[in-house]
Amino acid sequence: MRRSERIVRITEELLTHPYQIISLTDLAKRFEAAKSSLSEDLGIIREVLEMEGKGTLETQAGAFGGVRFIPGISNEEAVSFVKGLGRELATGDRVLPGGYLYMTDVLGRPDILDRAGRMFAERFGKHQVDVVMTVETKGIPLAIATSRYLHVSTVVVRRDQRVTEGSAVSINYVSGSGRRIQTMSLSRRSMPEHSRVLIVDDFMKAGGTAKGMIELLQEFRSEVVGVGVFMETAEPETKLVSNYVSVARLSKVDEFARNVEIELGNYFSKNYENNVLGNIQQ
Amino acid sequence: MRRSERIVRITEELLTHPYQIISLTDLAKRFEAAKSSLSEDLGIIREVLEMEGKGTLETQAGAFGGVRFIPGISNEEAVSFVKGLGRELATGDRVLPGGYLYMTDVLGRPDILDRAGRMFAERFGKHQVDVVMTVETKGIPLAIATSRYLHVSTVVVRRDQRVTEGSAVSINYVSGSGRRIQTMSLSRRSMPEHSRVLIVDDFMKAGGTAKGMIELLQEFRSEVVGVGVFMETAEPETKLVSNYVSVARLSKVDEFARNVEIELGNYFSKNYENNVLGNIQQ
Repeated sequence: MRRSERIVRITEELLTHPYQIISLTDLAKRFEAAKSSLSEDLGIIREVLEMEGKGTLETQAGAFGGVRFIPGISNEEAVSFVKGLGRELATGDRVLPGGYLYMTDVLGRPDILDRAGRMFAERFGKHQVDVVMTVETKGIPLAIATSRYLHVSTVVVRRDQRVTEGSAVSINYVSGSGRRIQTMSLSRRSMPEHSRVLIVDDFMKAGGTAKGMIELLQEFRSEVVGVGVFMETAEPETKLVSNYVSVARLSKVDEFARNVEIELGNYFSKNYENNVLGNIQQ
Repeated sequence: MRRSERIVRITEELLTHPYQIISLTDLAKRFEAAKSSLSEDLGIIREVLEMEGKGTLETQAGAFGGVRFIPGISNEEAVSFVKGLGRELATGDRVLPGGYLYMTDVLGRPDILDRAGRMFAERFGKHQVDVVMTVETKGIPLAIATSRYLHVSTVVVRRDQRVTEGSAVSINYVSGSGRRIQTMSLSRRSMPEHSRVLIVDDFMKAGGTAKGMIELLQEFRSEVVGVGVFMETAEPETKLVSNYVSVARLSKVDEFARNVEIELGNYFSKNYENNVLGNIQQ
């Protein structure tokens, strides 16, 4: 096999299998190549991925050695993505009655989901996530985009219990902003106990829904390793969840002037590690 | 730039931008390469993609020429995927009270979504899809996986009207199996008129929900170019929608023996083109 052909095949295999270890012995056999040639190929691929800010490769040495693709995003690409998003959301007539911001359309766009998913993968990838969890409906596309890059399953919390979900655990929680009692429900079969869970959602105002999901996870004896939201609101400043990562922050919605201001989220703040680690279940 | 490095960069760029035209002039500039060398690189990449059954490249000649990645899946991979899925769904205790089959977990798994998404992209890609549409909740992951490969937006029909969606069009429809009147609603802002729409859903029994979505689309003066479902049921044999593509078919659920039989869907039938083209709105 020609070298350039081998490089295309390895690049394709790595990119489409994020976080999955590919054995060097298998590669060597399939491509009838010496491990030293493969190492050279992998060196080039890693160099390009890092240079383009798309992530990196992680190589494990030894007889059972392998390589895996760790997806990511450069700070530069993330900043330019969120700034562009902010401009887009601030123009057009997106302010709805009640002061809500219409952003359902952007949450269905593959380019936006791809970048947000890579941002969450970049930030939470090293925390051994077993499951990405979200609540229906608008958080699902983001959760799917994130779980694809982390190569884990997405689990969807329902607002009501459905016959197609089998037995479920339900909890009541207080929505942070409205102070209303709401219910959420998760199928018993959806997740093994003692899972490490990344919560992903589209929007966080007071954080009541995220807090509800964290409480629900205790019923599954599972641990929250992070909370990622696409858009947080500046108000209220104090959220019910102490640690979370936001892609963007909605600092102002003026229903009458139909004016919106969007800033970079806390993903970009210097002490962002504080938003990931630490006791998130406090 | 070394040739192997250039090949990695082009492969990465193509794979992560399905259906998006990349200009040859831009590539030549960025990589300081002659177009003839690029053509050779692209030839190798296309050869590998086709050999591995991952799709192909489409090249447009001329001064404004470009290249784009058309994702796909080989029949071999699709058959082995659906057979494996069938075995998995037939084992384990998946029969729920009422004879429902639990499959929410598989619809959250990235490996399964990836293959189903590529199957729908393979089958519907040539029909100039503008939008992938689904109805909440369980169809959303599939729709997102499909729209990523087709590089179009996903639009989610809601079961009820939400303040965060702005003004919406609602219709009542009759669920095919239960003969109950249900409501579905789609935000006015979600889709421009005269869109070409691919409907994707997780499950089809009688087809009432798909029929409802087709009716809803008439309110948007939009056209259905195809209906793709993950799992159809063998009964009732006559669906309310005449043309659709199914990945798998549930031929038997025995609630008492807790026994399930799953077959290949009509995606694999020889005259599958009949399931895509023709007057789907009849």
